[in-house]
Amino acid sequence: MPEKNIYSSFDKNQLLEEKQKLTEKYNEFKAKNLKLNMMRGVPCKEQLDLSNDMLTMDFHEIHSIAKDGGDCRSYGGLMGTFEARELFRDLTGADNIEEIMVFGNASLNIMYDSIARSMILGVCEGATPWCKLEGSKKAKFLCPVPGYDRHFAICELFGIEMINIKMNPDGPDMDEVEKLVNTDPSVKGIWCVPKYSNPDGFTYSDEVVKRFADLSPAADDFRIYWDNAYMVHDLTENGDNLLDIFAELKKSKKEDMVYIFMSTSKITFAGGGISALCASEKNIKYISSKVSIQTIGPDKINQMRHALFLKDKAGVKAHMDKHREILKPKFDAVNAGLEKNFSGTNLAGWTNPNGGYFLSLFVPENCAKRTINLAADLGVALTPAGSTYPYKKDPRDSNIRIAPTFPSVSELTQAVDALSVCVKLAYVKTLMDSI
Amino acid sequence: MPEKNIYSSFDKNQLLEEKQKLTEKYNEFKAKNLKLNMMRGVPCKEQLDLSNDMLTMDFHEIHSIAKDGGDCRSYGGLMGTFEARELFRDLTGADNIEEIMVFGNASLNIMYDSIARSMILGVCEGATPWCKLEGSKKAKFLCPVPGYDRHFAICELFGIEMINIKMNPDGPDMDEVEKLVNTDPSVKGIWCVPKYSNPDGFTYSDEVVKRFADLSPAADDFRIYWDNAYMVHDLTENGDNLLDIFAELKKSKKEDMVYIFMSTSKITFAGGGISALCASEKNIKYISSKVSIQTIGPDKINQMRHALFLKDKAGVKAHMDKHREILKPKFDAVNAGLEKNFSGTNLAGWTNPNGGYFLSLFVPENCAKRTINLAADLGVALTPAGSTYPYKKDPRDSNIRIAPTFPSVSELTQAVDALSVCVKLAYVKTLMDSI
Repeated sequence: MPEKNIYSSFDKNQLLEEKQKLTEKYNEFKAKNLKLNMMRGVPCKEQLDLSNDMLTMDFHEIHSIAKDGGDCRSYGGLMGTFEARELFRDLTGADNIEEIMVFGNASLNIMYDSIARSMILGVCEGATPWCKLEGSKKAKFLCPVPGYDRHFAICELFGIEMINIKMNPDGPDMDEVEKLVNTDPSVKGIWCVPKYSNPDGFTYSDEVVKRFADLSPAADDFRIYWDNAYMVHDLTENGDNLLDIFAELKKSKKEDMVYIFMSTSKITFAGGGISALCASEKNIKYISSKVSIQTIGPDKINQMRHALFLKDKAGVKAHMDKHREILKPKFDAVNAGLEKNFSGTNLAGWTNPNGGYFLSLFVPENCAKRTINLAADLGVALTPAGSTYPYKKDPRDSNIRIAPTFPSVSELTQAVDALSVCVKLAYVKTLMDSI
Repeated sequence: MPEKNIYSSFDKNQLLEEKQKLTEKYNEFKAKNLKLNMMRGVPCKEQLDLSNDMLTMDFHEIHSIAKDGGDCRSYGGLMGTFEARELFRDLTGADNIEEIMVFGNASLNIMYDSIARSMILGVCEGATPWCKLEGSKKAKFLCPVPGYDRHFAICELFGIEMINIKMNPDGPDMDEVEKLVNTDPSVKGIWCVPKYSNPDGFTYSDEVVKRFADLSPAADDFRIYWDNAYMVHDLTENGDNLLDIFAELKKSKKEDMVYIFMSTSKITFAGGGISALCASEKNIKYISSKVSIQTIGPDKINQMRHALFLKDKAGVKAHMDKHREILKPKFDAVNAGLEKNFSGTNLAGWTNPNGGYFLSLFVPENCAKRTINLAADLGVALTPAGSTYPYKKDPRDSNIRIAPTFPSVSELTQAVDALSVCVKLAYVKTLMDSI
């Protein structure tokens, strides 16, 4: 956070005056009885409508017969249907469908299951189940921060200690990552959202991805949990380019080190998409042997619907262009609103990503919680303070995640104006507290 | 197994002669290059076709809006959609939808997750996670035998010791169950398929269900894993009646003791159905708090399709009547074939259930494996020997599970004829081995 800002030189009286002005503005918003939600990365109705053809399209018995002959209406097909595996193979750049396993509607569930399995059974053949590790040997995860609250919640549930790693515009602080991964055998994983990171919207640089691929973990069962949730979710025509970590790892035969997670939740329907895991054949073999005890197979009808609807990589791209048309003006509105309210104030910093579902707003230290509470009282819902950090503890109480996808452009403009008043009021109150 | 049978009095020469005759018959079947599968409880094409309307029916945006206003195309709805919860409430006789949670396509997955959660986090608030129990305190499960191989596989994967319980035509041996459950705190569960049990097709009597409800477990975290997979899968017009264990338990406020699992895998599509858990509000509250970390919610579009297609309890009954028309002749053909081949021989016993997906064939001791191998060489695939017992060990090597749903009536007739020759040949060979 900048040291000098518009209020830095204010004396007590000036602050009091400013507080009164801001409170008036605040009350004006309050009188409007707003009900705006920028809390979670939820697609808006117009985005969901883009996939309505999937509800009504011609889908007959014949469409449920996979290329490999399997009847998707029946049991079997643990790995997912041929067509869905091909689709995700093309989206990831995997070499063949043996590296792809397609699951149900939630990639979060694949991640949770990975961790749960590692707790009880171990990450791979011969690995010690994490629930058997005690004291200083207990499993630890690295967490680039700010990050995705649901990743952190899984670790917290299972008692896996989380270590904050600073997130930079080109990715996590790799000096810190290398130091910890390469020396501490209790470090078992790192959560990554490598493209349009949640919440900053940063994309890892080629150099960062290469440094990930060059890791020499102290733990045999260390894995990179590469949650590529926004792989095709560009807000600009060409979007950011993310280096293919799987290909990089293969160069040095280290491909067992990564699990790549994907889903169509933000491509088709958030409540009825399909998800996939891309991993080395060795990893897939181990994982599928365990999943074969968990289920006879995923919902293959929905996988076939998706393959028919999205067709291929080009089909996905064309579909995502339609999402972009809806989302770009929303992100622009938020950015313009923040510019308008904070330009020249030095009170706030924010990211302006080329894709994804979020942006990060950084407010003065110790003001995020106060801001979010003030906004909540105005009817502007934001992700709870601290959520973007492990254990919900933002050490600087400064980060606010903004999710611009759900509200309309005019609602967003209003919400950002209201939020900006809250930021200023929270800061002025905080300054006055310390006088 | 009967002591006296048609071969009991045969001397060596007679046995040799019989073996030659049977081998000739066996070779006749072999020449036919059969390819018949009675291995798993897989619905046949005609059964899957019954639900083809679910693929093509009018399902528009409007149908994805649940009664409670939720847009099923989007996130949320951890508990399942209102409509799907109502449907399962009516099928189970639960008092309200707060006792119902609807999941994805596989009830097996709900069961696996229950056990996995119990291993890492514990069955309920304050319970010790099973992975922390050592030595004689390690978690044990009771397994009525013969039983469902996939239940046993979950326990085996997690190192949960399984104890065989004799299965009678009216349910598990309750003397044994009471003795173990009520005295041994390491006994954490019992696997039950209470209606049309897998593989016998037995339905628990009212008295057995009442004795289950009267259990006073030594372990606070003991649960009855009530896999009601065949609750509406009658082969006769009225079917067997299963007493409602949930209602029985509520009478003495012991409703936390049971988890009831259900799915539509064998109602609509085995590869694209929906599944549900019915449990006490206390259990559901605990479970949903953990599942909320695992996923944002199930595939709600498919739940809405199911609710629209099946409508209600009466709709399910009408749909199951169509399954019955297809399945009844198949079970009848198997029973008639077994009658024809074994009547008066005292060589085999079998069950003739009023519903479900299986029947049990009991062959002379030490002959099941040999029979199944002989049949496999003929192109008649059966569930591997021992599968219906924990650790795949049938102590008498006598039980063969027959799954009559997939083949046609004429195929079944042929398969049973072939299988019968295999039983006789296996037995005669076994007798000769011991001379």
